[in-house]
Amino acid sequence: MKVFMLVLDGIADRPIKELGYKTPLEYASKKNIDELSKMGINGILDIISPGIRPGSDVAHLSILGYDPYKYYTGRGPLEALGVGLELGDEDIAFRTNFATVNNDWIVLDRRAGRIENGYIFDDVINSIGRIDDVKIIYKTSLSHRGVLILRGKNLGEKVSDTDPHKVGERVRECIPLVNDESSRKTARIINEFTKKVYELLNNHPENIKRENEGKPKANILLVRGAGKIKRVESFQSKYGIRGACIAKTAIIKGVGRLLGMHVEDSEEKYEDRINQALNLLNEYDFVLLNIKEGDEAGHDGDFMRKVRIIEEIDKALNPVFEFIEDNYFVLLADHTTPCSVRDHTGDEVPMLIVGPEVRKDDVEKFSERDCAKGYIGRIRALDLMNYLLNLINKLEKFGA
Amino acid sequence: MKVFMLVLDGIADRPIKELGYKTPLEYASKKNIDELSKMGINGILDIISPGIRPGSDVAHLSILGYDPYKYYTGRGPLEALGVGLELGDEDIAFRTNFATVNNDWIVLDRRAGRIENGYIFDDVINSIGRIDDVKIIYKTSLSHRGVLILRGKNLGEKVSDTDPHKVGERVRECIPLVNDESSRKTARIINEFTKKVYELLNNHPENIKRENEGKPKANILLVRGAGKIKRVESFQSKYGIRGACIAKTAIIKGVGRLLGMHVEDSEEKYEDRINQALNLLNEYDFVLLNIKEGDEAGHDGDFMRKVRIIEEIDKALNPVFEFIEDNYFVLLADHTTPCSVRDHTGDEVPMLIVGPEVRKDDVEKFSERDCAKGYIGRIRALDLMNYLLNLINKLEKFGA
Repeated sequence: MKVFMLVLDGIADRPIKELGYKTPLEYASKKNIDELSKMGINGILDIISPGIRPGSDVAHLSILGYDPYKYYTGRGPLEALGVGLELGDEDIAFRTNFATVNNDWIVLDRRAGRIENGYIFDDVINSIGRIDDVKIIYKTSLSHRGVLILRGKNLGEKVSDTDPHKVGERVRECIPLVNDESSRKTARIINEFTKKVYELLNNHPENIKRENEGKPKANILLVRGAGKIKRVESFQSKYGIRGACIAKTAIIKGVGRLLGMHVEDSEEKYEDRINQALNLLNEYDFVLLNIKEGDEAGHDGDFMRKVRIIEEIDKALNPVFEFIEDNYFVLLADHTTPCSVRDHTGDEVPMLIVGPEVRKDDVEKFSERDCAKGYIGRIRALDLMNYLLNLINKLEKFGA
Repeated sequence: MKVFMLVLDGIADRPIKELGYKTPLEYASKKNIDELSKMGINGILDIISPGIRPGSDVAHLSILGYDPYKYYTGRGPLEALGVGLELGDEDIAFRTNFATVNNDWIVLDRRAGRIENGYIFDDVINSIGRIDDVKIIYKTSLSHRGVLILRGKNLGEKVSDTDPHKVGERVRECIPLVNDESSRKTARIINEFTKKVYELLNNHPENIKRENEGKPKANILLVRGAGKIKRVESFQSKYGIRGACIAKTAIIKGVGRLLGMHVEDSEEKYEDRINQALNLLNEYDFVLLNIKEGDEAGHDGDFMRKVRIIEEIDKALNPVFEFIEDNYFVLLADHTTPCSVRDHTGDEVPMLIVGPEVRKDDVEKFSERDCAKGYIGRIRALDLMNYLLNLINKLEKFGA
């Protein structure tokens, strides 16, 4: 028996006035998903504990049974793993974004007009090579986003962001957050790096071209979320089963790589993604498929888009019904992203589990409120993997 | 957005035969409270963990997110803060009550006939001044109840009560509960103090007057609940919001003061208390209003009084409906005080949360059993503050 876990990122929401005080999950027409709820057991999940607002990285660690209070390392290292960079135990990783600054380094656009092709600057940034004895490794992940790795001796990760997180403010100096030599060294390298990047990019032909086209220059890199990797017990060693993770976003792929799972980029169309997961399940015991689009609609406050995304995903789920004849399917959100808040909140998320031997309950629809009436009640994400391993008889007995 | 938390002390109960196997909350006619349940989300709360019987002090610590297993210091220090005494880190605080003893120190009345004006003896008790190098500070809080502080060097708090907790038994000697010099010293001072109090009070003119009036003398002070204060992170620092606490009882005010909240005595009439809370909410982000009367009815086993109290409080809640258009209101009991038991029990308590964006459930009445069917299910009091901070968007995100 195998487990297909479908994580609809940020799909949970709060009742929306324009939808008649329904959530997108309640409003959407979703025959397949509701049928799966009807055939299965339902409940609500605290991703961390009641009320705590999780990032998607923290949420996925928790859902996969790794306590984020123990294992979370900041977003930098996960993003680095996510974009496929190798990360040494001593490396310091940062998330970065291209931004536009004026001559005084006042930030005019935190995303350099959401530049589509930031990767064209990868080589010029990597041409910096070293600063002192520290090797500079940079890679653009998607549009304006990227990852920076500092590789060298005695580097500390307790340093501040250079990203002021606000337009109209000056690029921040990177400062050590603890008083030790290694953090001072990291801060010094980052400040030197920022200067060099500006020198290389401000009059770079591609930026001159952007300027002529009326686009904001990508003339600086802002860094944030410094961290070192923490090695964790692999998914396979912890659970004795082979796991795979399919996602579009680097950060989720990073979580999968941290746990030593097989990681794949997801296909484009929803139905192709579902088939991709089902195909992988021929080879792996457990596949997590993350579908990010609902979360993005939530961040944009676009509840009708969220509704459409739910309805489109629903149509792609036909092949799941054959799968659950002999296996288990789990559907959940990794957190709530209310269209009203446009960010993650700590509200409970709905979950359904369906497969050969569940104690089927009375829930008829998959939604935040319907699932709350289900058989499972309220549990914590950290317990979910054990719950599933138990259903597929892959859990050791405790005691005799 | 702000939070108004109304704690109906000990209002939860067990089904009562005389009320047709209903609890007072189920039996009472309470239009407003039920309407709030209907508009909101409901659940049951474990104040500590299933079954654990909390005191009101422990319950309020837990409800405010401070683990009582870590932060509870015994009732003495909280009561001392509650009556407005300053408490040093080395002081030992006791709760006290005036009692009536005969010449052999057999307790005839543990409350000296619930003496109304115990404070008339404050000066004579404080005239003791010092015993050895230990300063004696005494204050009557309400009727027969008061607080004693020992201030000096090398005082330990691990000592027994002198209160035998039963009529007909002799006043107990205070003994050290651990074998160390500091606890022995405290015990010695308390025994000396008890003797001096008896000498000062037994033939005091006010007691002769009481005797002539046929009232039991207040001729001794029984002490219990020795403790030292433990400093905790303030409410404001922990949550980043400004909090206030309104109560009649010293112990609840003591909890508020321990957490550095703004603390006020509550008004007399229920509607004035509600308005007092709503007015404070102009200035504070969070106000806890404790209404004690239901608990007292429970301790007296007077279920009809409990019903009346619920109905009177209900009538005072009209102004809450305007408040919740833009803010959140929480109603809960801090513990169950069954009229049959006449003391706190560890039964779950009902809770409702209502405000602009809750995922409204099907519950139509606020009661122990109705709330158990609500959206929230069952959570622990220690998670409640995070739950509320999430709703008012005052919680930091964990991860990204």
